[in-house]
Amino acid sequence: MSDLTLSSLQNPLVKLLRDLHGVAGRRENRQFLVEGRRAITSFLDAGMRPVHLLARADEEIPPEWPADLVRRMSARVAERISQASTPSGYLASLPIPTPPAIAARLGGLALARIADPGNVGTLIRSAVAFGIQQIALIGCADPYAYKVVQATAGALARARIHQLDDAGALTPLHGGAPRCALVVSGGKAPSALSSGPRWLVVGSEAHGIPPEWLAQCDEQLTLPMPGGSESLNAAVAGSIACYLMTVR
Amino acid sequence: MSDLTLSSLQNPLVKLLRDLHGVAGRRENRQFLVEGRRAITSFLDAGMRPVHLLARADEEIPPEWPADLVRRMSARVAERISQASTPSGYLASLPIPTPPAIAARLGGLALARIADPGNVGTLIRSAVAFGIQQIALIGCADPYAYKVVQATAGALARARIHQLDDAGALTPLHGGAPRCALVVSGGKAPSALSSGPRWLVVGSEAHGIPPEWLAQCDEQLTLPMPGGSESLNAAVAGSIACYLMTVR
Repeated sequence: MSDLTLSSLQNPLVKLLRDLHGVAGRRENRQFLVEGRRAITSFLDAGMRPVHLLARADEEIPPEWPADLVRRMSARVAERISQASTPSGYLASLPIPTPPAIAARLGGLALARIADPGNVGTLIRSAVAFGIQQIALIGCADPYAYKVVQATAGALARARIHQLDDAGALTPLHGGAPRCALVVSGGKAPSALSSGPRWLVVGSEAHGIPPEWLAQCDEQLTLPMPGGSESLNAAVAGSIACYLMTVR
Repeated sequence: MSDLTLSSLQNPLVKLLRDLHGVAGRRENRQFLVEGRRAITSFLDAGMRPVHLLARADEEIPPEWPADLVRRMSARVAERISQASTPSGYLASLPIPTPPAIAARLGGLALARIADPGNVGTLIRSAVAFGIQQIALIGCADPYAYKVVQATAGALARARIHQLDDAGALTPLHGGAPRCALVVSGGKAPSALSSGPRWLVVGSEAHGIPPEWLAQCDEQLTLPMPGGSESLNAAVAGSIACYLMTVR
């Protein structure tokens, strides 16, 4: 099998996988990258079929992986295509799914101008864990960027992601379930929320939800903070609100 | 005031502040570093008095800061003592407080072998927001390391941090409030928890709580995950449990 090992940095596949580091390359090829045995396995477990699946020559091929799809790569190639600070030796490219049209009446999680990729990924992971699959990203980090993908820990495969134009604000959600803005102060307590579907709208930690977008919301929610702190980490606050919306 | 500007990389203060990058230097000097105008302000707001407070020559001195304590530094010095990828121009060293003896009967948050500094800092921040001030760190990242400090967003100043020896496991908590382990599956639902003080024990995402430590716990708690995911981000799961312990 050694002659099939991907070892030349000039190989077109290496160039393609490098292209997927950037948003333009991902859009053009409709693929995104996942790194690491554990992270890739979580995507495979969620039913995603990889376009490319690579294991470095010195690594074992995980028994739960589809062996017929795995290709070997040299250490140099692994280093070249990795985006991790320490290349893990496992890399996959997966197809970017085309979501169905947004179902505004069903509600879900709407992220408003969250640029931090770790926060976007963590919020997708939490939403999916609590059964919220429909997620609207409005003016946020690209959900298929490396740091977002890794932070979702596979949950991205179970989500229906809608990337919406910043200029449209919350308009695509109009006429559907009520829009409930998570705000640091002045909103309703979680116990005062009615049941039923809603859009939970979460902004960034530094800037919150843009005022014009907030004006498009039907209600506001504030998490009680008996310790008197000013705020929580944005991903933590949004995750608690997802929990309270679905589990209580 | 220009002659007071800290501009030489050979100045002993520059060497001291560099020493605070490492755990040994922090222990020896009983000081830790905070960077950034917003982060420093949150520590000052919490009532901490800085040992050193530095602003780069091109930055304004925040009006809410104690102007008599602020010293100017050159761009070279700022770069030399910064631990941020982009030095912010504001830096403070603060005294490491000596906590009172642990009050096991009052309960609190116990972190078990969490090495990730961002997770440790985020959990401290959430605990304090929900009124949990007593925090035991057992075999965890140093709470005064840069990434932990920044992730607490000032909450570190309001917490009583007990750094406990890994070898002692949960022993320092014995005889106090019940120890409740947060586990991925098989524990009680949050609604089944009795009220009253307890120690919430949270482990790392990759390894959970070490089995011998788990055996020292009185009860186990599992967050319902109707979406069927395997797990949440460790900081998110621990933060939701803190919320449920104190707010519900």
